[in-house]
Amino acid sequence: MNNGDNLIEKLVTQNNQKILLLVLDGIGDIPHRSYGKKTPLEYAITPNLDKLARNSVMGRLIPVLPGVTPGSGPGHLGLFGYNPLEYEMGRGILEAVGLGLDIKDGDIAFRCNFASADDNGVITDRRAGRIPTEKCEELCDLLGQSIQEIDGIKVIIRPSMQHRFVVVFSGQNLCDALTDSDPLSEGRLPLEVKALNEKSEYTAQIANRFYEEVRKGLKDLEPANSILMRGFSGKPRMPSMMERFKLNAVCLASYPMYKGLSKLVGMTVIDEAGQSIKELFQKYNELHNKYDFFFIHVKYTDSNGEDGNFVQKSVIIEEVDKWLPTILEKKPNVLCITGDHSTPAAMKAHSWHHIPVMINSDYCGADEATRFTENECNIGGLGTFESKHLINYLLANAMKLNKFGA
Amino acid sequence: MNNGDNLIEKLVTQNNQKILLLVLDGIGDIPHRSYGKKTPLEYAITPNLDKLARNSVMGRLIPVLPGVTPGSGPGHLGLFGYNPLEYEMGRGILEAVGLGLDIKDGDIAFRCNFASADDNGVITDRRAGRIPTEKCEELCDLLGQSIQEIDGIKVIIRPSMQHRFVVVFSGQNLCDALTDSDPLSEGRLPLEVKALNEKSEYTAQIANRFYEEVRKGLKDLEPANSILMRGFSGKPRMPSMMERFKLNAVCLASYPMYKGLSKLVGMTVIDEAGQSIKELFQKYNELHNKYDFFFIHVKYTDSNGEDGNFVQKSVIIEEVDKWLPTILEKKPNVLCITGDHSTPAAMKAHSWHHIPVMINSDYCGADEATRFTENECNIGGLGTFESKHLINYLLANAMKLNKFGA
Repeated sequence: MNNGDNLIEKLVTQNNQKILLLVLDGIGDIPHRSYGKKTPLEYAITPNLDKLARNSVMGRLIPVLPGVTPGSGPGHLGLFGYNPLEYEMGRGILEAVGLGLDIKDGDIAFRCNFASADDNGVITDRRAGRIPTEKCEELCDLLGQSIQEIDGIKVIIRPSMQHRFVVVFSGQNLCDALTDSDPLSEGRLPLEVKALNEKSEYTAQIANRFYEEVRKGLKDLEPANSILMRGFSGKPRMPSMMERFKLNAVCLASYPMYKGLSKLVGMTVIDEAGQSIKELFQKYNELHNKYDFFFIHVKYTDSNGEDGNFVQKSVIIEEVDKWLPTILEKKPNVLCITGDHSTPAAMKAHSWHHIPVMINSDYCGADEATRFTENECNIGGLGTFESKHLINYLLANAMKLNKFGA
Repeated sequence: MNNGDNLIEKLVTQNNQKILLLVLDGIGDIPHRSYGKKTPLEYAITPNLDKLARNSVMGRLIPVLPGVTPGSGPGHLGLFGYNPLEYEMGRGILEAVGLGLDIKDGDIAFRCNFASADDNGVITDRRAGRIPTEKCEELCDLLGQSIQEIDGIKVIIRPSMQHRFVVVFSGQNLCDALTDSDPLSEGRLPLEVKALNEKSEYTAQIANRFYEEVRKGLKDLEPANSILMRGFSGKPRMPSMMERFKLNAVCLASYPMYKGLSKLVGMTVIDEAGQSIKELFQKYNELHNKYDFFFIHVKYTDSNGEDGNFVQKSVIIEEVDKWLPTILEKKPNVLCITGDHSTPAAMKAHSWHHIPVMINSDYCGADEATRFTENECNIGGLGTFESKHLINYLLANAMKLNKFGA
C-alpha cells in the first residue's frame, strides 16, 4: 500500500515556473488587549498585502501537530515539505546549524557548557558563573588552538551565548548514540560518555578523550575549568529539495540558523543576501532567473514577538508591505507568504497557534478573505492544514504536479 | 494500535435509511475573470439548491491529498469510502473500466497502440499515423475474430480513440507484474514483455504470444501492422460496499467509466439509467425502495469545465437545480451533493482545488453558509477533509454507525 508519503515525489515534474516562499518568522499572533484586541497583522496598515490578499487563497497552517509549539527547526522543515516528525534534529545539530556551522553527513555535533570544578573534578557550578559571551569566545579560541583533532577526527569548537558552546566532530565512523556527560546537578563528577550501541563506542572514546584534553587546556582557568557535554547528534539524512521535488532552491536569509536549515535540505545559500527586507527582496529580483524556488526569511517579526513588542512587530509587517512591490516586479508564478510558527507578542514566545498562509498564482482560486490576517485566513479556501503539505499546494500552483490516476 | 482504518466497518449497522450521493463531476471551480470573478456555482441561479443549502451542512473535500489533482478513478473511489492511495488502479484497468468492460478478479488489462513497423518489425511510427477511430474499431474487430483465446486464456480486444485499444486477458494464473513492450521511440523493435516475478512468467508468455498473433493478423495492413503494449494491470482487490459498509448500493450513471468504477466496489449498475439529469433523477425515484445507497453521476459539469465553457457549466448546474425537487420527492434520509474533483473552466482541466460538499439530513446540523458555492462551503460546519472520510458522515447521518466506546 502506498501511504501517500512519496506520492508528491512521483507526481512532480520540472518546469520554468518560479515559486517564492516568503517566511515572516513568528508572524502568527493572537488579539492583544492593549491594542484594540487586534493582532499585529490586523493593526498594521498594509495596502499592498491587502490588494494581494483579495486575489489570493488563504488558510492556516498547523506547524507540526495540533497544539504543538515548534522551534525554528521543525517550523521551517515543515514549510520546506519535510515532515518534522520524520526528520527530527538533535539539539547539537540544531545549535551547530544555528551558529552557521557547515555540517556534513557523518558529522556529530553536541552542546557544551563551561562549568566550574574542584580539584577532584567535582562540578561546583554547572554554568561557570554564567561567564560573559566574550569570555566564552576567548576560551573557545584557546581550546580550538590546542585541540584541532583527536585520532584523526577533526574537532570544531564554536562559542554561543554566555557559558554555552558547540563542538562538531568530523570524520569517519562516528555515531551519535551517546549518553550526556552532564550530571544535571552540582556536587558530582561529570559522567563518562557511554555508547548506547556498538557502533558508537569509538565516538564515546573520542568524546571522553575530548573531555580530558579540555580539562588540560582549561587547567587553572577558574571559574571555567571544566565542561559538560549534551545532545550528541548527527545530521539527519535528508534527501534534497532537488531530489524530492525537482526544485532548484535558494535561500535568502540574514541569520545563520535559517541558512543552516536551508543547507540541510540542499538549498543554495546566498552568503550576503542582505540584512534588510529591502535588500533581501532586491536580491530575489537579481536571482529570479537562476533558481525556481526562493526562500526569503524575515527575522524581525519573530524577534519583536519574542520581545513582546507588539507595535514593532506591526512596523516590520508594514515594512514588508512597503517593499512588497519589489518582489512583485518579477511576477513570481507562485507567491506564498506565511510563517514558520506563531510568536504572539502577548506571550513573548513561540506558540502553537495556527499560522496565517496566503498563496497567490494565476490559478490559486480565491475566497472571501480580504486581508492577510488570522481571522480572514480562517475563512480561506485552503482551510487549516499541516505545514508539511504546503509544498504540495506550491508545486500544484506552479503546475509542477502531474495528475494522479486517470 | 488501531489506526482507525477499519473502525467504520466495525461500527456500521444496517437500517432502512436511504443515502443519496449526487456527484456533479468536476463541480469545483475558481473565480473566473470574465464572469465577475465568480465560479459557475456562484454564477448559476439555483433557488432549489439555495433552499437546501440553508438547511444543510457544508464543507470542502480534498480528493486525494493536498495539492494533488486526481483522475476520475481516484476521485470517485474516495467518495465511495476507498482510500485512493490504498486502492491504486493500473492504467490498463482504468482504460478497460472506462470502456465499460466487465473486469473480473484475476483478469489482466493493458493498453495498446496500433503502430507501424518495417519488414524487420522495427517500429517506424508508434501511433500508426494516428489512424482514425473507425479504422481502429475495424482492426480490433478483425483481431477479435482471429484471436479469441491463447492457451485457454480468453482475449478481449476493445477499440478506444484513434490508434488506441485495450486488451483484457481472462483466465487462471494471470499476474500483472510485467514490463511494457513499448520501446518509447521509433527505430527500435518492440521489447519482449518480461515477467517481474515468477508468478508473472506465464502471463508474459501469453502477452508475447499475443504479440506474435497480432503481427500475423495485421500482416500487410500498413500503416497499422504492429502494436505496442503498456500498463499491464490487474483488478485491485476491493471489498464491496456491502462488505465494508453494509450498503446495498446502486449506480445511476450514463458513462461507462463511472459504471465500471461502481462495479469495482460492488454496486449494482443500472444499465439504462438514463442520459439526462431528469431521467437519472426519475430513475432514483423508481428505485428508491430497492437500495439503500444511490450514486447518481452527472457528467456534463466536468465536460464543460474541460471545454472551458463557464456558461454551459453554469447551465448544467441550473439544470440540476431545476430537477432537484424530483429527488427530494422521495425524501432520501441523507442527501449529499459534491464532486469527484474540481475542473475549473479557466483551466480546462482537472485540478487540485478543494471540492464543495453539502450534506442534508434531519440531523446534519447546519452552518452560516447560505448557498452551495466554494466560498460558502469554506465557512461550512464540516471543514475541509479528505474525500475518503465522506462515507463516514453519510453513514452517521443515516444513523448507520454505532457509538464508539461507552
